[in-house]
Amino acid sequence: MKKLAREVCIIGVGMHKFGKFLDKSLKDLTRVAVWNAIHDAGIDAKQIEAAYFSNVLAGLITGQESIRGQVFLRDAGFEGLPIVNVEGACASGAIALREAMITVGAGVYDMVLAVGAEKLYLDDTARSIAAMAANTDVEFMAGLGFQFTGSYAMTLRKYMQQYGWTQEHFARVASKNKYNGSLNPYAQYQKPMSVEEILSSRVIAWPLTLYMCATMGDGAAAAIVCSQEMARKIGGKLPVTIATCCLRSGEVTGEDDGQRGIAREAYDTAGLGPPDIEVAEVHDAMAPGEMFRIEKLGFCRAEEMGQLIDQGYFSLTGKLPVNTSGGLAARGHPIGATGLAQIAELVWQLRGEAGARQVKGRNSLYPRVGLAQNSGGYVEGSPAALTVTILKRDVA
Amino acid sequence: MKKLAREVCIIGVGMHKFGKFLDKSLKDLTRVAVWNAIHDAGIDAKQIEAAYFSNVLAGLITGQESIRGQVFLRDAGFEGLPIVNVEGACASGAIALREAMITVGAGVYDMVLAVGAEKLYLDDTARSIAAMAANTDVEFMAGLGFQFTGSYAMTLRKYMQQYGWTQEHFARVASKNKYNGSLNPYAQYQKPMSVEEILSSRVIAWPLTLYMCATMGDGAAAAIVCSQEMARKIGGKLPVTIATCCLRSGEVTGEDDGQRGIAREAYDTAGLGPPDIEVAEVHDAMAPGEMFRIEKLGFCRAEEMGQLIDQGYFSLTGKLPVNTSGGLAARGHPIGATGLAQIAELVWQLRGEAGARQVKGRNSLYPRVGLAQNSGGYVEGSPAALTVTILKRDVA
Repeated sequence: MKKLAREVCIIGVGMHKFGKFLDKSLKDLTRVAVWNAIHDAGIDAKQIEAAYFSNVLAGLITGQESIRGQVFLRDAGFEGLPIVNVEGACASGAIALREAMITVGAGVYDMVLAVGAEKLYLDDTARSIAAMAANTDVEFMAGLGFQFTGSYAMTLRKYMQQYGWTQEHFARVASKNKYNGSLNPYAQYQKPMSVEEILSSRVIAWPLTLYMCATMGDGAAAAIVCSQEMARKIGGKLPVTIATCCLRSGEVTGEDDGQRGIAREAYDTAGLGPPDIEVAEVHDAMAPGEMFRIEKLGFCRAEEMGQLIDQGYFSLTGKLPVNTSGGLAARGHPIGATGLAQIAELVWQLRGEAGARQVKGRNSLYPRVGLAQNSGGYVEGSPAALTVTILKRDVA
Repeated sequence: MKKLAREVCIIGVGMHKFGKFLDKSLKDLTRVAVWNAIHDAGIDAKQIEAAYFSNVLAGLITGQESIRGQVFLRDAGFEGLPIVNVEGACASGAIALREAMITVGAGVYDMVLAVGAEKLYLDDTARSIAAMAANTDVEFMAGLGFQFTGSYAMTLRKYMQQYGWTQEHFARVASKNKYNGSLNPYAQYQKPMSVEEILSSRVIAWPLTLYMCATMGDGAAAAIVCSQEMARKIGGKLPVTIATCCLRSGEVTGEDDGQRGIAREAYDTAGLGPPDIEVAEVHDAMAPGEMFRIEKLGFCRAEEMGQLIDQGYFSLTGKLPVNTSGGLAARGHPIGATGLAQIAELVWQLRGEAGARQVKGRNSLYPRVGLAQNSGGYVEGSPAALTVTILKRDVA
């Protein structure tokens, strides 16, 4: 992607706690996240001119296949707004942010809401699990009997042989994230967990054990996206600039790797590189996923990963804290909300509002540059939607 | 909405015929529409930098709830593209166009594909009909036993009393559109139908008879959206400028009417008014819907409508031809494709490529300005998504 016609920033974020809320509807989850973001931005809800709504499975889970945002935001008190429902599997939340950014960047509106909400828990869990199969080409996959976790574990074993990654490294990553989640009041799981506990949990597909994997979740997250000009006028909290928000689907033949390609695109458009990133949220549906992403985002080479994990390089007090929110496994992964929860965490970290899990900046009290990586779905063995977002705050 | 940072145009459109295609998948329908648009634009598919995909019911109908565009466009030969799935009930196609326009207008890409595809026909028709209920707030409506056609017929009877609209007027509108459809090779129904045939068809909810109503359909439509600058470089067919493409959801309390409000917004942003429009495609899921829209778009007052219909004012040779494609009732209404089929029709009319249904311009051989109105879904009695698009060609 090329540069937007004008600079765009985030002036407020909000979440509904991630977790299991059998008594709450998507309307309830949406309302809380949106109003938290509005309060955070210090604006009047009427200043919001348009909304992008992200949800993945409400059609199959609640029957609300169509006009999801219109239904759920109406309940939150909005009427008349241009609302666009967007979807891209587990990357949907980042896509809602991206579209809001583009719309403000085009000059069409000055203030746009991006919100993602998902409700996966039902009394009938089997229905939720069946719905999740929609994350791939259903017609094609029906013929294959494809099983995601198994295939993932096989790739993992290759990496272990090649780069010296061990099951203990995976457990250390999961343990770090469970600890981070224990400090996050919005996290689904707020209980620290030792490396031993994780290693001794049930094996899902060796080397993956139960506590290395994200589970189902309900929740919502929102961001208020705004032109720099309008943000200055409002004069609320320090605005956080969206330096870039890139999207791709799958691999491109002849290219090394879709994930590496989009990282390059993100760094190029932001005019930044891996050494500039001070805090990152990455998509760790399984704990080793964090390691794959760290490598592909250029933070370190695969062969040095194990050693860096052992040194605590990616922990809250390390050189590059990763998944300070707890990541997908601890903060939780209500699919359509995840991408925006990553953004909320980065905004809090960049503003110094992350409470007990606040990390330090390299050249200032709090970090100045954060990166979020979100991905979702599979088509012909490649991720269907890959996003990389870089946020940056001016010196305060 | 405010003006885009730069001007955006359409350089190619394409469709898959609308109809009943039990042996074709959404992949098949998408591929044909996209490749027709690419050929029409005279570009290489590789020049397309991003895509917006519109579909409403594939989740409930085929199980492909997630990553629809990624799955269906991969089959059309695309890989690596940023793809965003958008949804807004029957207005989804127009929303895909709008998002493509905004993205190009923001300067992020120079060439973006907007495509809408829908497959409603199944061997099991009851399942398709059940899925269509997702067009409203399903949780709220489940408690009401709301029946759309009946409520529509009641509103209609009020208008008949107030403005002298008669059942024969509705049949004339339907007959005009069936005739237009008979001249459109992409139309689902290509058989002219007399006013008498329409009046004597089965009563659905008086005054509505069977042939006044749109039915289910399969089909796809696509448009290639491009910066003016790039269009000039390519030098293909005469580009058609998107003068505006506005979106709202529902009514705004205290405002006269959401439909009137969005028409005003569209005219304001385009710097045009109702007298400038030379050809229009409007959302006539039922024939009288065309009359409601004509009035709310400011083309005439409700009380003069009947007389104008009797004079043939809205026919192919009239002063303002409406639904030259056949409209929803004759061209067909595969939900997510409809908005882009309207756009394809306008582009053909503005370029003088509409064949036997080509209309004349007022000050030049072919019309210079066309309007498309698309709407979808219901939340608390108001349309969930309203769009108005105005297209304009430079003098050739």
